[in-house]
Order: sequence, then C-alpha cells, then structure tokens
Amino acid sequence: MIITLTTDFGAADAYVGIMKGVMLAIAHDLRFVDLSHEVPSYDILRAALVLNSAWRHFPKGSIHLVVVDPGVGSQRRPLALSAGGHIFVGPDNGVFSFILKEPAPNVYHITDTGLFKVPVSTTFHGRDIFAPVAARLASGLPPASVGPRIDDAIRLTIPIPRRSSAETLVATVLQVDKFGNIMTNLRREDLVKPFCIHVGGQEIRAISSSYAEVMAGVLFAIEGSSGYIELSLNKESAAGKLLLQGGAEIKVTLEV
Amino acid sequence: MIITLTTDFGAADAYVGIMKGVMLAIAHDLRFVDLSHEVPSYDILRAALVLNSAWRHFPKGSIHLVVVDPGVGSQRRPLALSAGGHIFVGPDNGVFSFILKEPAPNVYHITDTGLFKVPVSTTFHGRDIFAPVAARLASGLPPASVGPRIDDAIRLTIPIPRRSSAETLVATVLQVDKFGNIMTNLRREDLVKPFCIHVGGQEIRAISSSYAEVMAGVLFAIEGSSGYIELSLNKESAAGKLLLQGGAEIKVTLEV
Amino acid sequence: MIITLTTDFGAADAYVGIMKGVMLAIAHDLRFVDLSHEVPSYDILRAALVLNSAWRHFPKGSIHLVVVDPGVGSQRRPLALSAGGHIFVGPDNGVFSFILKEPAPNVYHITDTGLFKVPVSTTFHGRDIFAPVAARLASGLPPASVGPRIDDAIRLTIPIPRRSSAETLVATVLQVDKFGNIMTNLRREDLVKPFCIHVGGQEIRAISSSYAEVMAGVLFAIEGSSGYIELSLNKESAAGKLLLQGGAEIKVTLEV
Repeated sequence: MIITLTTDFGAADAYVGIMKGVMLAIAHDLRFVDLSHEVPSYDILRAALVLNSAWRHFPKGSIHLVVVDPGVGSQRRPLALSAGGHIFVGPDNGVFSFILKEPAPNVYHITDTGLFKVPVSTTFHGRDIFAPVAARLASGLPPASVGPRIDDAIRLTIPIPRRSSAETLVATVLQVDKFGNIMTNLRREDLVKPFCIHVGGQEIRAISSSYAEVMAGVLFAIEGSSGYIELSLNKESAAGKLLLQGGAEIKVTLEV
Repeated sequence: MIITLTTDFGAADAYVGIMKGVMLAIAHDLRFVDLSHEVPSYDILRAALVLNSAWRHFPKGSIHLVVVDPGVGSQRRPLALSAGGHIFVGPDNGVFSFILKEPAPNVYHITDTGLFKVPVSTTFHGRDIFAPVAARLASGLPPASVGPRIDDAIRLTIPIPRRSSAETLVATVLQVDKFGNIMTNLRREDLVKPFCIHVGGQEIRAISSSYAEVMAGVLFAIEGSSGYIELSLNKESAAGKLLLQGGAEIKVTLEV
Repeated sequence: MIITLTTDFGAADAYVGIMKGVMLAIAHDLRFVDLSHEVPSYDILRAALVLNSAWRHFPKGSIHLVVVDPGVGSQRRPLALSAGGHIFVGPDNGVFSFILKEPAPNVYHITDTGLFKVPVSTTFHGRDIFAPVAARLASGLPPASVGPRIDDAIRLTIPIPRRSSAETLVATVLQVDKFGNIMTNLRREDLVKPFCIHVGGQEIRAISSSYAEVMAGVLFAIEGSSGYIELSLNKESAAGKLLLQGGAEIKVTLEV
C-alpha cells in the first residue's frame, strides 16, 4: 500500500523518519513517497497546493498523509477523508481544501482513540495520531470506522482572479517553484484574447507553448503542469528577477 | 528488512544513493528510511540525538546505519551493535552513545574484511564497509559474526544539567529543530516547582501543555516529543528570536 | 525493480513525488532510490557526474531516470539507453555522456507516443514521457521497442587535463561536494612524480592516503571515491577556504 507524505518538517530532524517507523511497526508492507517536507512552516495553503498537484497521479487506493499542523495540541479535529478513490489523513485546518471540491467526498472526524499511539503527546500528532491512523487505513480499516462523518471541514478561501473593473482582472500569485516559475491563480479560460498581463513593467499578450520557444531574458506566460498559468523565464528565475512571491497581485487587462 | 540511514552527506551528492545501491546489490528486498542526511558535517552529538529520537519507533529487528564519520580512513573501529531488539552499524566515535545506555548492549568490532566491498577506499567507508555489513546483517548474518565483542566503545559525555549552587541549575541546549524549538537537556523531573528558567531577559515559571495554549510572542517551556524540555514560541522560531544554538547554557533557579 | 532518480527539481515542490506516482500507477512493485534532486537547475554536467558516481553500484537491471532537461518542450530527443547491464532514461542533452563511453551502448530515440501519459505537457516531460517509459521498461518492455536505434546522442565535452607546456598541466574543477572537497578532473596516473599542484598560494606535492593522516588546516590531495583527485582539508571545507567552484582551473607542474 502506498502512503504519500506532505509536511513542513524539513529534512534535518528525524520527524518524518519517526512517522515512517511508527507506520512500519503497524503495517510492514508500506511504500512511502515523499511529496514535500519543505512546505514553509505552518503554510497550509502551500500544503494544499502540493497535495493538489500530486495525489491524482498515484494509483487509486493510495493514502495521502498531510502534517502541516500549526494547531497541534489544540481542539482542531484530526480528519480522514475518502474522495476520488483515494484516502487522505491530516488536520482539519484547510490542507484538504482542494480535495473537498472533489465530487462527494466523505469526511470523518477521527475520534477513536484506540487507534492512537499512547500516550498522545501535545506536540507531535503526526507521530501519535496521524501516522498510526494512516497505517491502519492502509491495512484495510475502513475510513468510516475512525469516527463520525462530518460536513463542516475547514476550507481555505483559495484566491480566484477578481474582476476589479469591466476590463481589469486582478490575479494572485499562488506560489513560486524551485525554478522561479511564478504560479498564478489564472486559468487558460480566464485569458480570453486579447489580454495583457502587466508585471514588472512588462506586458505579456500571449500564452507561450513551451519554455524552449522563448528567447532568453524574455518574460512569458505558459500553462503550467498543474493547469495554472505561470510566468516564466527560459533558464532563469522569473520570481527572482521580478521579486515576486506567493500572495502578490498581478493586473491583467482584457479588451471589452 | 528495514534499514534506516543517518548521515552528514547532505542531499546534493549521490553518496546516500550509492550506499543504497551497494546494499540493494547484496540484499534485494530492503526498505530504506532516511532519518536525516542533514546532520551538520562531523557533528557526532547531533547524529546521536537524531538516532536516539527515532530508532525505538521502528519495528524490532530494524537496522540503523549511521555514517557521520570524521575519522574515516584512520584507526577508528567500525562497529555493529545489538540492543533493545534492534541492530546498529557505524563508526566507533560516539554516535551510539545513547544506544550504549540501553540494557545489555552487545557491541562488536567489525573485523571480517570478507564482508567489505573491495578495494576499501580510505574516504568512503559508508560505501565500502558500513553499507555492505548492514546489508549482510539484514540478510540474517548474526552481529556476533562480524568480529570480536568489545566493551570499550566510545561514549560521548552527553551534557546533563549541572548544579552550580544550591539553588541554581545550568542547563545546556542540545539542539534546535527546524521550527526553532530549543531542545534543552532538562527533563521534567529536573524542574521541581517553583522554578524559573532565565533566558533572553525573560523568565519562564511553568511547563505549558501545548503550543496552542500560549499566546503568540510569549516564550514558553514544553515537554518535547523526545522527553526533553524545549523552549518554544507559538508559530515562531524561539531560537531565531533568542539567537540561541546547540551548546548554549541556560540558567535555571530553583527555590530551596 | 529498482529505479534511481536524478533531477534538478529540488525538494520543495512535488515534482519528484508526481513522477513516482505516475510510475507506481503503471508498475506497482517499483523501488525508488533518489540519487540527487539538488542538481543545480539546468546543470547537465553535474547530472552526468552524479549518475556516473552512482549507477555502477546498483544491481544489474536497474533503471536510472535522469530529468535535468532545460530543453523540455523543444525538439530535443527523449532517450532510452542500455549499457553495462543497466538501463537509462532521460533527455538527449549530454546527461548520459559518461554512459556513452561504456562498451557498446545501445541508444534508442523514444518515439512510441503510445508509451506516454497523455496529453503530453510542454513543461513536464519527466511526468509525461520519461516516468511512464521508465516504468514500462521496469515492467519488462525491451529498450529496443521504444523507438529507433541512434548513434548520434549528444556527448558533453568532459574537460580533461590540458598540457599547456612540456611541464605544465591545467586541470579543471569538476564539482565541489557537500563537505567542500574539490573534485578535479585529474586522475592518479596524471600525477607522475614529482608533481606540484599550485592552488591558493599553496603547493601540494603528494597524494595523501586518508583524511585522518593530515593535520587540520593543511590542504592536501587525495584520490576520491569516484577515482578523481580531490583537494581537501581535514574536517573543513577546502572549497570554502580557497573560494573555488566547478569550472575553476588549477595549475600543475610536472618535472620533465
């Protein structure tokens, strides 16, 4: 059984390894795939985006464990979800916002303390609650048996492009990747031609079809692998050059 | 069979992957779990702490390979240990200091050169000595067959809180984690009330029970997931704010 | 079946995890070993060096997937190679330069679009072309069936030491590792005695046999684990001290 992991734990400490040890002690034949452990500390939106970019590519039945959990030790609920043929485990803080948009998700509040590693610490529910529950779900425990079904799981307000006037759209930078590609919340269908993206004193009027077709040094827009429009430079960091990061706003004018 | 890995090799070079390749060439059905490869170069205490935080959570019979090895190529001994139902492989330099405190550890000096990958380099015993021995132990080789039993393995002096006067305890920072939590060498039992931890011009007089119960910006003490008292800030780096790092001393006053 | 991965994707984004998901959806029993995902963006030589240092240590039949692909979306060819009993998959841009020096490599241009994940994006061939092909090769697809055999795959000019006069050799720094060891393109056989490496105002006249035999602070040369001569300091970063990085030239004088 495949379990993916997404956390803000970083690579220096053994926290991720500890969770894997706890899971292997429950279910011997697990295969782990790390999605990212470099989510910025407490960055729930980023964790939701990482998960959203990846889960669909795994075989049905995979379990996706997310531990970005600034509310650890508080009353925030631990959740198990089933949606799209996959299972998800993590805190009720918005990390599953995209999953909750899938058709007919089933969301369960994990209340069966018999599934936990005891004593449950107040600082590391990844080890004591989420990992043991994920391992038991991987061993065949039905999600419905972890606790009551709920329908009020927390959803982040994912920013969508906002029309500030008849001819102006305000887009938001969702994140910047390792190459400096700037992922906006624009979709191809938002950019009915003719359009103009205004950014860093430059104007972009077309969606390019590949990195390689654009000359070095020329900023361009492209549909990224997650389906969002990204602003990029060929073999250079667009985000580094424009000094843009997640949350920045970008003006788009549309001809009306 | 599960093999965990703890090194100071970092993620950029292929050193860790090479060790895994060597092991897979000996034993095909291994599962690897990385504990940390971001141990600071040559930092034996940090490697010992990483291992100590994690090994117990793995199934019995797991093998824990540690290659933080500033003495590679010298006369320092390669070791295999069995303790607590687990097996450990690595250099005799103190990385197993916590393991040696387990009841009745068996420690063996690896001398059977027939187990090595030849020719043995002088710079990469992880590849040529430790990985092949770990893989053979995973395949069922008894630890006792790698070489003679010894009882003088090197132990680091792990700093413990020091009483500098009847009412004063001097604690030491063991390490700082990715979130900026400051792990001290204090245990809950060291802090008989009333106590006062003096740090960065602030005073802490209680052990909090969760991150979430403390207001932003207020420094607090909490029992961390490894059982040591940690100094933390809610959603902020305590170490960054106090400019503290491993080895720093912290004064604690106790009422007498 | 073992698949190793070498990319410049970094650890923050889910790109590597996505490729693993795609592969697991095709072949359930894969084992992944990460060689490095910290290849500097677009650094083909570094990717070639990472692969060269590692592949030989894996069992025969292993598949080595390399996605350092600045030409993604252009006409650069996707390749599958078999050489030395191993299989390699990645872009035709020089990442396989060392593999192409193996005896009788078979190189195939991947043209069977039926093997791809559709629709094929222009920005992420790792996900849409290389990962699916690697997974199918792992499932037993013969390399020869992915497309026509070619014999003009791109080879980087790997710098070799250059004789600038009868008694002078100009060596090049290939890379610097995490410990600050400076890997040159010199081999032991280039350094017929008496020789003198001139670097940072210092002179090195011997090849040391281990890190441990050299006093702290004294720069020395040693045969590294990949067979190249490296310049090192005991428990200190030679590259940091000399401010040298990949591409730097180093003068060696030989007595004639």
